[in-house]
Amino acid sequence: MERGNIQSAVDEIRKVCAHTTTEPAELLLYSFDTMKIKRKPDCAVFPESTEEVAAIVKICARHKIPITPRGAGTGCIGGAVPIEGGVALVLTRMKRIINFNPDGLYVEVEPGIVNAELSGFLEKRGFFYPPDPASLKSSTIGGNVATGAGGPSAVKYGVTGDYVMGLTVVPADGSVLDTGIKTDKGVVGYDLKKLFVGSEGTLGIITKIRLKILPKPEAVVTATAVFPERRDAVSAVIAILRKGIRPRTLEYIDRTAIRCVEEYLKAGLPVNAGALLLVETDGKTAEAEKEMNDIKELCLAGGADSFVIAESGEEAEAQWKTRRSISASLNRLRPTKINEDVTVPRNRIAELMERTAEMSERTGLPIINFGHAGDGNIHVNVMTDANDAEEYELALKTVEEILDLTLALDGTLSGEHGVGLAKKPYIAREIGQPGVKISKAIKKALDPDNILNPGKIFP
Amino acid sequence: MERGNIQSAVDEIRKVCAHTTTEPAELLLYSFDTMKIKRKPDCAVFPESTEEVAAIVKICARHKIPITPRGAGTGCIGGAVPIEGGVALVLTRMKRIINFNPDGLYVEVEPGIVNAELSGFLEKRGFFYPPDPASLKSSTIGGNVATGAGGPSAVKYGVTGDYVMGLTVVPADGSVLDTGIKTDKGVVGYDLKKLFVGSEGTLGIITKIRLKILPKPEAVVTATAVFPERRDAVSAVIAILRKGIRPRTLEYIDRTAIRCVEEYLKAGLPVNAGALLLVETDGKTAEAEKEMNDIKELCLAGGADSFVIAESGEEAEAQWKTRRSISASLNRLRPTKINEDVTVPRNRIAELMERTAEMSERTGLPIINFGHAGDGNIHVNVMTDANDAEEYELALKTVEEILDLTLALDGTLSGEHGVGLAKKPYIAREIGQPGVKISKAIKKALDPDNILNPGKIFP
Repeated sequence: MERGNIQSAVDEIRKVCAHTTTEPAELLLYSFDTMKIKRKPDCAVFPESTEEVAAIVKICARHKIPITPRGAGTGCIGGAVPIEGGVALVLTRMKRIINFNPDGLYVEVEPGIVNAELSGFLEKRGFFYPPDPASLKSSTIGGNVATGAGGPSAVKYGVTGDYVMGLTVVPADGSVLDTGIKTDKGVVGYDLKKLFVGSEGTLGIITKIRLKILPKPEAVVTATAVFPERRDAVSAVIAILRKGIRPRTLEYIDRTAIRCVEEYLKAGLPVNAGALLLVETDGKTAEAEKEMNDIKELCLAGGADSFVIAESGEEAEAQWKTRRSISASLNRLRPTKINEDVTVPRNRIAELMERTAEMSERTGLPIINFGHAGDGNIHVNVMTDANDAEEYELALKTVEEILDLTLALDGTLSGEHGVGLAKKPYIAREIGQPGVKISKAIKKALDPDNILNPGKIFP
Repeated sequence: MERGNIQSAVDEIRKVCAHTTTEPAELLLYSFDTMKIKRKPDCAVFPESTEEVAAIVKICARHKIPITPRGAGTGCIGGAVPIEGGVALVLTRMKRIINFNPDGLYVEVEPGIVNAELSGFLEKRGFFYPPDPASLKSSTIGGNVATGAGGPSAVKYGVTGDYVMGLTVVPADGSVLDTGIKTDKGVVGYDLKKLFVGSEGTLGIITKIRLKILPKPEAVVTATAVFPERRDAVSAVIAILRKGIRPRTLEYIDRTAIRCVEEYLKAGLPVNAGALLLVETDGKTAEAEKEMNDIKELCLAGGADSFVIAESGEEAEAQWKTRRSISASLNRLRPTKINEDVTVPRNRIAELMERTAEMSERTGLPIINFGHAGDGNIHVNVMTDANDAEEYELALKTVEEILDLTLALDGTLSGEHGVGLAKKPYIAREIGQPGVKISKAIKKALDPDNILNPGKIFP
């Protein structure tokens, strides 16, 4: 694709959006996400309205300049990296709650609002927005929608896409599209909103989001089960769900992760356990407690040697601290962590665990598994040192082996992070050539000059 | 679009699919759905495999012959009518259950399987497929997916699209696309499966469907509440949901419908009531009973003068009989029923009711409201006589007024039937010109010669 003159485009953009910068030090801030691949944009723009976004996109369309939208830059797959330069469109100034509609059970927000800020706003008013990615204290709702983010509560409440009722989107021609509904259901025309969810900024810039909200559950009960055998923990996950119980959280933590966290926190964790399950139930108080007792029985019958139900908010917080400290503690194990959010059917989790344990033994690389066992979304972490060329190569080969294993187990390469730069070499292995062909045809139809987040998703 | 020679196409199709007919009497059977617009296809084909479908589509693509896929023909919007002639692709012979996977909580089926047949198969094995369109005893899963069908249980369990994990689709070039996941979540590439759901056969022929299934709830509790005032019934719906209770069913039946059914069934219904609510809860026995008691309290406090919980399966069946007999009984009121499945936010239902009551008074046309109040999906039925030209014109104008009112109330023109021929004149009012433009761009990218169900959805 022949690109136009960036300087002319920047001059025009300055006229429609005062907050535009080409300062190298500032541009550096918008050159990466947590994947750590870096490419500076030529310019960063901070629009404050849909109209400004539309005007900017029109300018870029005329000059055929790439636009890479971004929120807080907490993504894991390089999605927010302006890999072909051009404009970084930073949406963090668009962070208003536009319309809180308790009777309609929805809220309308701008994309730059931080997930936790929205959740806090709703909680104070007796409502609940379930999707809870680990990054929730900094990631934006716009980024959550663009990547289709998940989180621990997905096992019961589903992922971001399940809450998107409507979107305002600026596609590549700079028009403004309102798509979606304000009702629980609707089947008028193609479901365009679902096409934009998870499209990682390649089909349009999301400027307004209407999200379904739920009444806040009366109670949340938290507990931790300790299993001597990893395999029993995985079987318990299946037994719980097979019983028709849908816990709000069903997180798995393997032995290596327990040991890393213990070394980090000195909290007296059971370092000889095979695995922990962190479980939460919610709903009416009596029902949440009843459900947790049912889960307790299933775990104890299934080989757990302890099952501790938190008696207070502080105890629950302490249990969560173990789970939340894993990522930080792993950094002490090896300098580089390659985190794959592969997802397999629940009944294949055990095989995934066995096979990655074998890989770890064979390669000598620590492989730590933890995450959302309830929906089969295990975070498989290969620990290595990117400065040791030989070992790093081995680590990358191991990762590729894990991805192939995942597909062989009927899994998906990404449960909640997306494709971006990280997984585009592998996408065809999952969606096949017909899937790539149709997806590219849609991309081409909507963005013929490939200006929206070019270089992502497709090889 | 220049079409090719149908006779040559038919000759070729006979070679790849033995079950092909051009007998006029047979073709008549595939010329309509419940909307009653008729157009005979030139040929009807009954493929038995994805390979046969792909071969047929390739032939039609080469000859630029229209293909209209259909299941049981129970749709309400003319979607299955081959309005431009060509090939009626009848998928009722592809009705196998391919793979029942209880551990993975999914089932894979061919499109021609009837909804109730699949539900029965699952129920016997302790599982549950929630989407329950009124047509479930005859409509096919393929048709349910193509239209995005709903049903009474949508208020708690969502609609067909919420259960589609994966699809095999033959797009307009005759290739075979496998799209979707076998896991609870996945964000690799665009969500193509969601694009095909509700696309009414215009983007591809669905030949295999992977559906999420749930463990069967232990108990279902059924009850009927009688409200002297219509408005109180609507308020009770909001109060129930606002409390965080999600009944499995929350159906509204207005006074005219009650009276029609009573005349038809002579069941001793409360003909002076303003409205009935038919409510169901499900789950563990104790919880379902507790929830129903909470609902009872809310209804009685909110103006209901009776609330009868069914004590047996027979009593529950009797309560359902009232709801299920509405459509048949309305036919006695006037010869022609125009049924609109408009959907409004729950907090606007009352306005929809008031305003349609005014329209009924003004025009003299009976307008009967019933349906899925829990999700705002009210079936508004304008009763008339299509043979009385003047009155019929008035009815059509009234329908248009109802559609405009629905949009003014933040609603959608169709909650579960779709667009097809019936609502294509109105689609732009809801999705706007940018929505039409983008949808048509996708259609053109995937089906450049417009051979898949041409003449539908878009004006």
